[in-house]
Amino acid sequence: MTPRISRREFLSAVAISSTASVLPRGAYSAAIEDAGAIPDISSHAPSLSWQDQGVLNLANSPYAKLHSVPVRAVTIEEGFWSKRRKTNVERSIPSMRLQLEQHGRMENFRRLVGKSSAEQQGPVFSDSDIYKWSESVGWALQSESFPELRGFADSMIREVVAVQEPSGYLNTYYQGERARERMLQHSQEVGHELYCLGHMLQAGVAYYRATGDSTLLDAGMRFVDKFVLPNYGPGPNQTPIISGHPEIEMALIELHRTTGKHQYVELAGYILEGDSRWKIDPKRIIYMFCGIPFTTRTKLEGHAVRAMYACCGAADYYLETGDAAYWKSLNVLWDDLIRRQMYITGGVGARSQWEAFGDSYELPNAQAYGESCAAIGNMMWNWRMLAASGEAKFTDVIERALYNGINSGMSLNGTTYCYRNPLAFDPASGDTIRNPWYDVTCCPPNLERTFASLPGYFYSTSKDGLYVHLYDNSRLEWHLEDGTPLSLRQQTKYPWDGDVALTLTPKKPSAFTLHVRIPGWARNAAIKVNGNPQTGVEAGEYFGIRRDWKPGDTVLLNFPMETEIIASNPRVVEDRGRVAVRRGPIIYCMEELDQSPGVALADASLTMSERLGKEFESEYKSDFLDGVVVLHHRGGVFETSSAEEALYSPATLTAPKLRPEDFTMIPYYVWANRQPSAMQVWTPYVRA
Amino acid sequence: MTPRISRREFLSAVAISSTASVLPRGAYSAAIEDAGAIPDISSHAPSLSWQDQGVLNLANSPYAKLHSVPVRAVTIEEGFWSKRRKTNVERSIPSMRLQLEQHGRMENFRRLVGKSSAEQQGPVFSDSDIYKWSESVGWALQSESFPELRGFADSMIREVVAVQEPSGYLNTYYQGERARERMLQHSQEVGHELYCLGHMLQAGVAYYRATGDSTLLDAGMRFVDKFVLPNYGPGPNQTPIISGHPEIEMALIELHRTTGKHQYVELAGYILEGDSRWKIDPKRIIYMFCGIPFTTRTKLEGHAVRAMYACCGAADYYLETGDAAYWKSLNVLWDDLIRRQMYITGGVGARSQWEAFGDSYELPNAQAYGESCAAIGNMMWNWRMLAASGEAKFTDVIERALYNGINSGMSLNGTTYCYRNPLAFDPASGDTIRNPWYDVTCCPPNLERTFASLPGYFYSTSKDGLYVHLYDNSRLEWHLEDGTPLSLRQQTKYPWDGDVALTLTPKKPSAFTLHVRIPGWARNAAIKVNGNPQTGVEAGEYFGIRRDWKPGDTVLLNFPMETEIIASNPRVVEDRGRVAVRRGPIIYCMEELDQSPGVALADASLTMSERLGKEFESEYKSDFLDGVVVLHHRGGVFETSSAEEALYSPATLTAPKLRPEDFTMIPYYVWANRQPSAMQVWTPYVRA
Repeated sequence: MTPRISRREFLSAVAISSTASVLPRGAYSAAIEDAGAIPDISSHAPSLSWQDQGVLNLANSPYAKLHSVPVRAVTIEEGFWSKRRKTNVERSIPSMRLQLEQHGRMENFRRLVGKSSAEQQGPVFSDSDIYKWSESVGWALQSESFPELRGFADSMIREVVAVQEPSGYLNTYYQGERARERMLQHSQEVGHELYCLGHMLQAGVAYYRATGDSTLLDAGMRFVDKFVLPNYGPGPNQTPIISGHPEIEMALIELHRTTGKHQYVELAGYILEGDSRWKIDPKRIIYMFCGIPFTTRTKLEGHAVRAMYACCGAADYYLETGDAAYWKSLNVLWDDLIRRQMYITGGVGARSQWEAFGDSYELPNAQAYGESCAAIGNMMWNWRMLAASGEAKFTDVIERALYNGINSGMSLNGTTYCYRNPLAFDPASGDTIRNPWYDVTCCPPNLERTFASLPGYFYSTSKDGLYVHLYDNSRLEWHLEDGTPLSLRQQTKYPWDGDVALTLTPKKPSAFTLHVRIPGWARNAAIKVNGNPQTGVEAGEYFGIRRDWKPGDTVLLNFPMETEIIASNPRVVEDRGRVAVRRGPIIYCMEELDQSPGVALADASLTMSERLGKEFESEYKSDFLDGVVVLHHRGGVFETSSAEEALYSPATLTAPKLRPEDFTMIPYYVWANRQPSAMQVWTPYVRA
Repeated sequence: MTPRISRREFLSAVAISSTASVLPRGAYSAAIEDAGAIPDISSHAPSLSWQDQGVLNLANSPYAKLHSVPVRAVTIEEGFWSKRRKTNVERSIPSMRLQLEQHGRMENFRRLVGKSSAEQQGPVFSDSDIYKWSESVGWALQSESFPELRGFADSMIREVVAVQEPSGYLNTYYQGERARERMLQHSQEVGHELYCLGHMLQAGVAYYRATGDSTLLDAGMRFVDKFVLPNYGPGPNQTPIISGHPEIEMALIELHRTTGKHQYVELAGYILEGDSRWKIDPKRIIYMFCGIPFTTRTKLEGHAVRAMYACCGAADYYLETGDAAYWKSLNVLWDDLIRRQMYITGGVGARSQWEAFGDSYELPNAQAYGESCAAIGNMMWNWRMLAASGEAKFTDVIERALYNGINSGMSLNGTTYCYRNPLAFDPASGDTIRNPWYDVTCCPPNLERTFASLPGYFYSTSKDGLYVHLYDNSRLEWHLEDGTPLSLRQQTKYPWDGDVALTLTPKKPSAFTLHVRIPGWARNAAIKVNGNPQTGVEAGEYFGIRRDWKPGDTVLLNFPMETEIIASNPRVVEDRGRVAVRRGPIIYCMEELDQSPGVALADASLTMSERLGKEFESEYKSDFLDGVVVLHHRGGVFETSSAEEALYSPATLTAPKLRPEDFTMIPYYVWANRQPSAMQVWTPYVRA
């Protein structure tokens, strides 16, 4: 059950790859045929044309149970995500381009071809910002043509590939005066060369899947084929590889899925295994989440984004190889995520220091790091776990992260971003949570590529039918795996309301299974098929409806949208004695500015009765924060503010006196969109 | 009320000082007379000989209400502190010398005189480790002659002064190849040159007060007089000064107190004011706690040790100048300390990241930094505030830090040290809390100098009599400020028992006030003078007993040693719903290894009744952890371990089921002296 090829076999694959032709622009289809001629990997040549490849192209991934649907097959209509996605393409992506220009990220490229005399600007991984931005455009172009964005991206890509060296190397930080430092152990550990390459490949893939234009993809592949594969790897004459910041692993596997060349999978496997020839500081092994066999990992630790991206790469590797040791490790790590490391918002990474996971159950609120990129990495990892298993528990994490810890990362106006996504905030801390620019600007374009690719996460196909993962007004125009064309329409006010109407229109009556996701929170969910109630519906599962589907068949889903009070494990020390409030997939918070003047959140308590959750009234406000359901609750605040009390005093058993107060709660994701104000997700409670 | 001299006056003082002779070894008294000849500062020439100078020499400090008693005047007898202090001189100080040698800290000096070919070793501030170690020896020699330690220290000091340049400069990191980098803005900000000089001066002062040998003090003074004063300062031809890591300020003022030269006070004032000619990153202004006028500070922030040392320097400056703006700022900062920033152990500095103060009320337990040096800085600051005011609230902080957050810093065997002093611990975190060596080894010798100088903190004199600050078996042989010789004997089992017997033996019957400290926690304290109960005794005050004291008069103090349950302000999020347990000055904790097998601290709750505190039984165990009072308590643990529970789940109002368990608590300061085990100070509670 370990189908990874041996080191010797890998070396022969390398020998082949280093002579394989790189793809000239426009000659992509021919090259794919050419790739198909490489021994032993012909079975993996992609069968889908560029237009038909999804967020991941899993069509030929032998261990994928679910297969992606292309972004362009799904149209998200007016509803919850439409405004966000419109803002993304109209404001976020364009303004980020200007920011990248203003901060010299493109000058770094121009400098190398004599078009700029500016110094190298930004951190060592600045090229990746350009790639993530280009990737955003790539996904956006799959939903709609944006001629201006395309023009900018085309031109950016031309400027990027112009600096590629004949060796295939391309990294503005390590070209020019720092050329001698490239790919040394130190620069591999901290220099993000392969991380930038990974993002170049992902951008190239997205852009190719959008446009058929493989210019950037070719450059990335050239980098891999000409520079990396011949010189770096396990061979006695090769220099070891350490990815430093995992990213290259999943990018290489997607490159394989795009080109059919299996050596990229082998290279990813070698990187995931770690090369023991290099002695690496054990603390860096933890921090980097690479450098030792992935399959020896038993807990999430170190830099959160690195860990999430490593898990993505490992899951991708499993999808291609079926390596049981990987699947086992991935599930051990996932249990650690779910049981001890994930914020209720789907954010991960507790510590600002090293942007890292904390100890088990270390989930501070105000001090939470919860980097937007890490929440995105969490979604990406779970998307791969879902593809491998078809299990709804992974989709629950995707939904949790997407609606909360990711969605919070971009302001409603689309031009400021969270790097940290804390679960409590006091403006007295002096932090500015949303900013238009960070010198380490990984999060903004990461958010942009996520929202741009979102349609690709709504559905999957499987051998037996279709999976519905996410709910929003949308249309799917695609086909079953047997080729039968199918359209599906969703009509819903989700996540504000739990009714979802699906209308299926297969081209011809067909027997297949429609797997509809019942969110983990949706107890007492109900399903009707053409008006007939279904039995056996379980929260946190896909409910499979196998029948002969005819055009116009309807499925009505009802997910009771009740306000629920959530407690955390008592080992989460900051949440003990506090509760969080959830309604559907939305986690709520309180912002001080929504409360009566003079009410300090630090002095607030909710009032919990035996009617748990019923103490809240929900109200949809269309003109408030782009349209949200707010919750109203009668709680209490200390009669004497705790700010007046001593830090330590003799305990008493008499609770401090409270006076009743009406509280308003808003979805967490819209916090910090007005003037700075205190915020908290977890609030103390008293019994009614 | 702002007696600081003007900038112009300061410059003229500088001109004088730069021509003042440095002190050749042995010629110290003459030099002091010489210093007395400098205009305007003659009134400040020290009146006490070296043997009679205390931890601080406040004899001539115009704004000191209390005056130090020399370390040698106080003998700590068999009791609470004797074992610790014996271990300190017999094991800690000697083993630290070996560690310093093994880690090349003296090689750095030898290298510069051609006696070593080793590379520079250790961080930029490594010289200070040598100075703090020498200072420890200096204080130790004031209690007892330790010929071997003295020999080592003498020889170390000879090796130190041998590298001093004719210019007066002395810093092994910036001599040799880095000479051109010295005292640039960057090196002043991060290079710790003046920090090392400050520690050289403090060591020189301690060693001089122990031995009369001014070799090291002379070298330090030469550095100040020849190198610093002429070249650095506010003058148009002088380079600005930023202390970078405050320390030089208090050292300069103690140099003034030792030599009578007032220009050192002026220099300290200039440094405390900050030199606006240099543009400093605002984040570094926060971090360094210097670079802007100290009197503009309104909260504790940035690097905790830097902040504490800056406050020490500012308090010292106030003691010499009476500058009201300083006293006001110091009190604002002290309120911030007490109300929002101090751990119950007296530790300060919440964050590992930047070793810094957190936001207000940010006092995590497991993640607490609570650097030993910061708790020591806290004690040093409060010692100065006490001297300026005579107010017991400052002594309460000294006692809190000394018995808990400082005392925890050294293992019972004296050879391993805490850098962090967290208030909760899980060995699964992988942290090793006590270590024999840190490459940044500031804390170990800081602890050593503190324990060595401890007798100097027991008593002070004032115009009207004597203050008793700390309680332990001890003898004072000193005199009142009118010159009347006085001995005082303390007999007590403090802190395990609250009875203290004081026997006073003035050489002749004398009218004076004996100020005995009633600890802030000692409600219902009682005092008898020669058997007569006193009235008006208040906790948290000095109780002044003015009478004609005759030889053999006795004062019996009784501080009811009750176990008290402490709650924190609800704004401390980790402590909400939890309590701490205190008995006298001792803060208690639970270590998992003292509980029944299988009991996880994370699942433990105390049981609180209306008899708050009476639910604990105390037991003195002489053969346990060097002799401690342990507390026994019947609490409870979850029937189902929280480790088995989900991270988030729907809240219920029914409390988890507990099964009764007998708990054992130990003083916080002895934690982590056995095998690694979970520990916590703050424990959840349920009502009985």
